[in-house]
Amino acid sequence: MSNRPTILVTNDDGFYAPGIHALVTAMNKIGKVIVIAPDKPQSGMGHAITINDPIRLSRVDVFGDVEAYSCSGTPVDCVKLAKDKILHHPPDLCVSGINHGSNSSINIIYSGTMSAAVEAGIEGIPAIGFSLLDYSLKADFSGAMHFAEVIARQVLEKGLPDATLLNVNFPALPAEDIKGIKICRQAVAKWEEEYDERNDPRGNRYFWLTGKFVNYDHGEDTDEWALNNHYVAVVPVQFDMTAHHAIPFFNKQWDLQHSGSNTPSDQ
Amino acid sequence: MSNRPTILVTNDDGFYAPGIHALVTAMNKIGKVIVIAPDKPQSGMGHAITINDPIRLSRVDVFGDVEAYSCSGTPVDCVKLAKDKILHHPPDLCVSGINHGSNSSINIIYSGTMSAAVEAGIEGIPAIGFSLLDYSLKADFSGAMHFAEVIARQVLEKGLPDATLLNVNFPALPAEDIKGIKICRQAVAKWEEEYDERNDPRGNRYFWLTGKFVNYDHGEDTDEWALNNHYVAVVPVQFDMTAHHAIPFFNKQWDLQHSGSNTPSDQ
Repeated sequence: MSNRPTILVTNDDGFYAPGIHALVTAMNKIGKVIVIAPDKPQSGMGHAITINDPIRLSRVDVFGDVEAYSCSGTPVDCVKLAKDKILHHPPDLCVSGINHGSNSSINIIYSGTMSAAVEAGIEGIPAIGFSLLDYSLKADFSGAMHFAEVIARQVLEKGLPDATLLNVNFPALPAEDIKGIKICRQAVAKWEEEYDERNDPRGNRYFWLTGKFVNYDHGEDTDEWALNNHYVAVVPVQFDMTAHHAIPFFNKQWDLQHSGSNTPSDQ
Repeated sequence: MSNRPTILVTNDDGFYAPGIHALVTAMNKIGKVIVIAPDKPQSGMGHAITINDPIRLSRVDVFGDVEAYSCSGTPVDCVKLAKDKILHHPPDLCVSGINHGSNSSINIIYSGTMSAAVEAGIEGIPAIGFSLLDYSLKADFSGAMHFAEVIARQVLEKGLPDATLLNVNFPALPAEDIKGIKICRQAVAKWEEEYDERNDPRGNRYFWLTGKFVNYDHGEDTDEWALNNHYVAVVPVQFDMTAHHAIPFFNKQWDLQHSGSNTPSDQ
């Protein structure tokens, strides 16, 4: 028992979502699971943290024998609190999800599921975010569970490169129709937003976010391609957001020698 | 007048924060400014978006002659709504800030200020986030205003590389003590978190986020180095989070040929 890895499980849909129950079931086969998940859905929370409000943690009993807590904060708060207040040692793995809906491509930026995984990565904990391309509460997680277990075992066995975590998206297919796993890059894609404009009963205008996802990327090495071709898409993710390739442009184009506010030349 | 660039200004501290007033004053010298800012502070909101609630926009009259709106949503919502509902053409530039407090290094991930700039970047709009290393409401923005104008003019004149935006942090110094501008990479740093644990009047436990920022990076090409040495730190930022350098590790280490759930080999 003491050799079983400790696996921290969280998500952004809250601890009642079927996706986190599927993930707990899959991880229970591998290690000792501890759950800390938001007490309410937190989709689209990005990498939000709670700074100006207190956060509460409550023990919950919704995963059988598994030690589990609900947290009043964001997915990132869950990971921070787990590390600081619940776990006595860093876990061997942190998994987030299984999200109800895609977090492929640019969606990683908006995703609470992935932000929890990114936060674990920043903390030096091997981390994986899992998402299924099916928003339904009645989604079939069987294929996702199979591959989540396969991928978690690979990460525990072989480790991850420094400062790297994984964004894993599953096609909405039965396990037997999924062709396998592809290592991918994030596709160049974005949301074409439109806001639905309405008036409330007092005649005041308000807006609902709508929009459609548009993939501009024709590459066959992207997560979008893999998912459309019935593969599990695994994108290695970093949290250094520096555009290293762009640094020479600025050093060449900008007059940095004379950029002091009142000095004739850089000192 | 028609040749003056259109500059969208937003922030995460809300439209009453002195920092956004400083930024509007600086941008007014360059172009036609339109402000859409949150109606309340949104620090630490990361790249959160409002999915499950309606959003409201109200015309406000707090920037003199400048057209300005308060938005009930997040900084990212402000940019999305500005593009879809307020501006008839994409602006020539989107600037966010000037934030009260640092967004250097890993702070970019948690920052509402930077997420607004990242969102504009995703939309193909040249974008800059500005932050001053002084949390005080009475901070001296004079140096920041000078350099914000210099940098915005450089971006308007020389453009930005594709899919790149800027994270600009100002040292908390008078303009004359700032040595100039350095193009930097994001330092390797993180927050060592501790939660302050308390009991409410009913004896229930709650937590406040505290912590200290620790820079593990001794490089002299980082934003932390530049700021500590009295330079304005400019980090080119990308929103492709793929760890491209890590892809070969997985293709080599993982057994992807047999990753199908019930197929003897990859098809």
